[in-house]
Amino acid sequence: MLKASDNELLTRVGAATPMGELLRRYWVPALPSADLAGPLGAPRRLSVMGQQLVAFRGEDGLVGVLAERCAHRCASLYFGRNEVGGLRCIYHGWKYDRSGQCVEQPTEPSTSGFKDKIKIPAYPVAERAGIIWIYLGPPADQPDFPQLEWLVVPPENVFCSVRLQQTNFVQAIEGGIDSSHVSVLHQDARRWRGEAPTPDWDRLFDDSAPQLDLEPTDYGMAIGACRRSGADRYWRVTQWVMPWYTLVPRDGDRPINAHAWVPLDDTHTWTWSISYHPDRPLTRDEIEAYRSGAGIHAEEIPGSHVPVRNKGNDYLMDRLLQRVGFFSGIEGIPNQDAAVQESMGEIVDRSAEHLGTSDAAIVVFRRRLLRAATALRERGEPPPGLDPLTHRIRSASAVLGADASWVEATAALRRAGDHLYRTS
Amino acid sequence: MLKASDNELLTRVGAATPMGELLRRYWVPALPSADLAGPLGAPRRLSVMGQQLVAFRGEDGLVGVLAERCAHRCASLYFGRNEVGGLRCIYHGWKYDRSGQCVEQPTEPSTSGFKDKIKIPAYPVAERAGIIWIYLGPPADQPDFPQLEWLVVPPENVFCSVRLQQTNFVQAIEGGIDSSHVSVLHQDARRWRGEAPTPDWDRLFDDSAPQLDLEPTDYGMAIGACRRSGADRYWRVTQWVMPWYTLVPRDGDRPINAHAWVPLDDTHTWTWSISYHPDRPLTRDEIEAYRSGAGIHAEEIPGSHVPVRNKGNDYLMDRLLQRVGFFSGIEGIPNQDAAVQESMGEIVDRSAEHLGTSDAAIVVFRRRLLRAATALRERGEPPPGLDPLTHRIRSASAVLGADASWVEATAALRRAGDHLYRTS
Amino acid sequence: MLKASDNELLTRVGAATPMGELLRRYWVPALPSADLAGPLGAPRRLSVMGQQLVAFRGEDGLVGVLAERCAHRCASLYFGRNEVGGLRCIYHGWKYDRSGQCVEQPTEPSTSGFKDKIKIPAYPVAERAGIIWIYLGPPADQPDFPQLEWLVVPPENVFCSVRLQQTNFVQAIEGGIDSSHVSVLHQDARRWRGEAPTPDWDRLFDDSAPQLDLEPTDYGMAIGACRRSGADRYWRVTQWVMPWYTLVPRDGDRPINAHAWVPLDDTHTWTWSISYHPDRPLTRDEIEAYRSGAGIHAEEIPGSHVPVRNKGNDYLMDRLLQRVGFFSGIEGIPNQDAAVQESMGEIVDRSAEHLGTSDAAIVVFRRRLLRAATALRERGEPPPGLDPLTHRIRSASAVLGADASWVEATAALRRAGDHLYRTS
Repeated sequence: MLKASDNELLTRVGAATPMGELLRRYWVPALPSADLAGPLGAPRRLSVMGQQLVAFRGEDGLVGVLAERCAHRCASLYFGRNEVGGLRCIYHGWKYDRSGQCVEQPTEPSTSGFKDKIKIPAYPVAERAGIIWIYLGPPADQPDFPQLEWLVVPPENVFCSVRLQQTNFVQAIEGGIDSSHVSVLHQDARRWRGEAPTPDWDRLFDDSAPQLDLEPTDYGMAIGACRRSGADRYWRVTQWVMPWYTLVPRDGDRPINAHAWVPLDDTHTWTWSISYHPDRPLTRDEIEAYRSGAGIHAEEIPGSHVPVRNKGNDYLMDRLLQRVGFFSGIEGIPNQDAAVQESMGEIVDRSAEHLGTSDAAIVVFRRRLLRAATALRERGEPPPGLDPLTHRIRSASAVLGADASWVEATAALRRAGDHLYRTS
Repeated sequence: MLKASDNELLTRVGAATPMGELLRRYWVPALPSADLAGPLGAPRRLSVMGQQLVAFRGEDGLVGVLAERCAHRCASLYFGRNEVGGLRCIYHGWKYDRSGQCVEQPTEPSTSGFKDKIKIPAYPVAERAGIIWIYLGPPADQPDFPQLEWLVVPPENVFCSVRLQQTNFVQAIEGGIDSSHVSVLHQDARRWRGEAPTPDWDRLFDDSAPQLDLEPTDYGMAIGACRRSGADRYWRVTQWVMPWYTLVPRDGDRPINAHAWVPLDDTHTWTWSISYHPDRPLTRDEIEAYRSGAGIHAEEIPGSHVPVRNKGNDYLMDRLLQRVGFFSGIEGIPNQDAAVQESMGEIVDRSAEHLGTSDAAIVVFRRRLLRAATALRERGEPPPGLDPLTHRIRSASAVLGADASWVEATAALRRAGDHLYRTS
Repeated sequence: MLKASDNELLTRVGAATPMGELLRRYWVPALPSADLAGPLGAPRRLSVMGQQLVAFRGEDGLVGVLAERCAHRCASLYFGRNEVGGLRCIYHGWKYDRSGQCVEQPTEPSTSGFKDKIKIPAYPVAERAGIIWIYLGPPADQPDFPQLEWLVVPPENVFCSVRLQQTNFVQAIEGGIDSSHVSVLHQDARRWRGEAPTPDWDRLFDDSAPQLDLEPTDYGMAIGACRRSGADRYWRVTQWVMPWYTLVPRDGDRPINAHAWVPLDDTHTWTWSISYHPDRPLTRDEIEAYRSGAGIHAEEIPGSHVPVRNKGNDYLMDRLLQRVGFFSGIEGIPNQDAAVQESMGEIVDRSAEHLGTSDAAIVVFRRRLLRAATALRERGEPPPGLDPLTHRIRSASAVLGADASWVEATAALRRAGDHLYRTS
């Protein structure tokens, strides 16, 4: 439960809002590299936290990201020509380099010096793990690039997809750190694709009411969820890394699943889904399965990043299937999540909730995010989680004795592979 | 003509408005029974007066209607599982019985007692005449079920359809009590289907400017419309029953037509159209004709309750047909009504009207509805028309001498069949 | 650059706004004659400056234009019957003549005299150059009909088309008086249709930074744009005639291109495009080319006045074509203009602009339009440009010596053909 004013504070991400200001202090995964054509290819529009941008790849293959509009008469640079040396507006031919500096003004006298005074917003760009990243915050505060394990493993070890979710980013993250729903909403997740159950997966259903034990950390929070499994305890550790990263509890030595939940605007979220193995390349079979909607990945309408199963078609829910035993009646983990989260409304009314003990992680997550936004706004306090060294973590799961401390027992499991960072 | 503030008062139906509060004191026809699957079948969303609800049929075939959202995290129960004993949210498995009581919470410790404290809004339900009815008002004020004749005749004597109208409910009702437009807008109503004229129908066109004589009643109003017919007078009596029922003047001993105009929200109306015969089953031919768009029923886009002839396609108006003599150029009485009423705007600006003597019933109808809403809000005065005994009425028509009193002369005709109420 | 309040003043055209009041003092090109069926044919809705109207052609072929709604209950007269003597509402049969006077009320007693008191807004209409014109201002202020040359040439000398633009009218006009963008945005305009270059057209590219010299006039402004062409100067003279007319600089003795940019509402513009020759009929080849999207005319989706290349499909921009040398990548002058102007937003934020010396005409145009609106509102000052004698002008272009005065040298070229006005 949250009062209305806190819900606003938590969810609004425009540039002038406290949360928007906070989020702009972090590097943002913004666009799949594959979505942007090669050197001097077509520019592309993108929206992040309500800002309209245009991305283009220069003659050297490096990416520029500019505010969308030409400084002259505000025409969109999306229609611009991607030329050697920069992007040229087609209205009057003003041309901008990747720093946003205007370098040509064919309709003005060449001696005027007018162009030297014209600069439009441009943003630092990085390209990692098949994703174009941008930094939208104050230049002086630009942080080091994050070092999450999926950002440093060899490219053949990682698969990324992205899907559009029609909700605010907070309720998307809240799904990502909610351990208990897995035992309910996703209970048929393995069965529907005919995948063999794993011992870990089966333990999820021994106890649907996990007890949570939260470990606040520099980077965010480690969430221990404890389920009874006979005389033992089955611990699943979800990691939340500021501001929008989560790591799904690992299942044995299978690939690790991770997410980044990035606001497109107040009511839409780009959900990045990453599967990676720290120690080996993904297999061809794994990649093909991900592409077709296995695990945390959604089958998408080609070219759209919109899931085939979406709000407009009730996620192709099959009521007969639901009735005869497939719990949710909806195929695919991300589609199940989207169904419930989008059904809550674009920005859920958190004053109408009734949270239980299983929602403890959600409560703390909100509090920390709110506190970070307020501390930055009111006292200029540096945002947490910016130190890349703290990102060298993993999710984990383990079966422990009833009296064991999960924090100690999973400490080694929760460390990312040191060898991966040697060259970084 | 109505001042803007009265127009607001008259037309807004949200739970917090005076009119919304008034309307919630009555039983509401909400959903065709045929639209809701059988025992443990798929739930269905429905909206009444702007409230989002979910309906489901339990293992005993009885219907439950709940507020749409789960109390926990506000996910929609529309996606819920319809199980023995209640509706289960697929997010975390919280389950509700038909009273709205939470009866299971698999993600919470079973000993917490938390579920006992959770109850969501649930509404009394009845199923009559092939319609699911709900009561949305304060439990202490729940009235007896209405006893309109079409609600008590044997099922084989009645046919119901429902169509979506893209206007506020008031301008829909105003069409229902407007006697004079029948002689104009609907003048070709019988001709277009090749139906034989009836003596009554033909009398409508002897005089297009009926004189109105209004008889306020306990249940609402009886509206006498008098047309000259040679030396005689042709009286047509429309009944308005609070808050949204109308009975079309009867034509000889043909089936009686009736309506209920129920707000879906401020700008959409569910128009229920009922044809029934008090004394005999409808014939197969009559039912087939109704289904195909005869009389007051509209041919609908299958599965939608949206008329085939609708605002998006200009009601398939045929200008050539209109020019060569078919007055409106639009086929079907309900489509003709929808065309003019929807063309007035979603909520017509009643400050721009110019009412004539033929609009007397509309003026009184508005005044009574406004007065009832204000009296309830300001003085807690019980709404009129709640006594089911007053509902035992019929519409009527009669040819009388120039000096006869229609009230006396049609008194017997306007009484519903006593035999129909013997068992109720 | 314009402050936000001036941008509002400049762009809002509702009846109660200063700009709306100013524009209503001029005759308005409103509908292609061909769009309105013949005598007693189907009425048609039209919107001008946010006003909802209905047009119909009476039994004599003359056009009536009325406010859309019946005075009685506000039903749309668009669904009305177009009868001898006027337009009849199909709801209750009220009938209006072309003056807006109610002439029949079949549902009211014939003796009441009520109809004589009912009159709805009706507007003066003219039909010229294949266009239906209306006057929406105060009757006492109705001006003489404009005498632009394309309005007085023989019908076989002129071709008109109209297209819907999804912007405010001001940014559309600003495109029309912007000489410098022609050398950039439209540089491939002749090439893409395989048209032979003309000497004038080629001179556009000798110098992409024209120097502007503005000549304020009674009717609006003559805009001289000077480009270096070897030792000479190539002058192109654009004419702006209050409030929304422009004449494209003439190319030799080819047909002259003209526009009228008329607000449909605040965010949509009807762009009228006119090609005419003052001295000869257009050839069949010219007309066929215009129809297929040559010159300033756009190929349209049949029956819609929406260009085939439009905002919804990114104007069918061909990125490969753009990359290999066709500057804009978009086919057709009007489509190129629409792409950049619509990309600026429906109403461009003029506080974000950075205007250069090449924008001098735009600055003066805005100032004059603002001043005219303010002067009318505050001091009742008669709008400029209403005297038809001042409309007898042409656009022009000329190659002159470096020291020549374009105003003097093109004076004769800029006069419309006297012979055309002998009979008017």
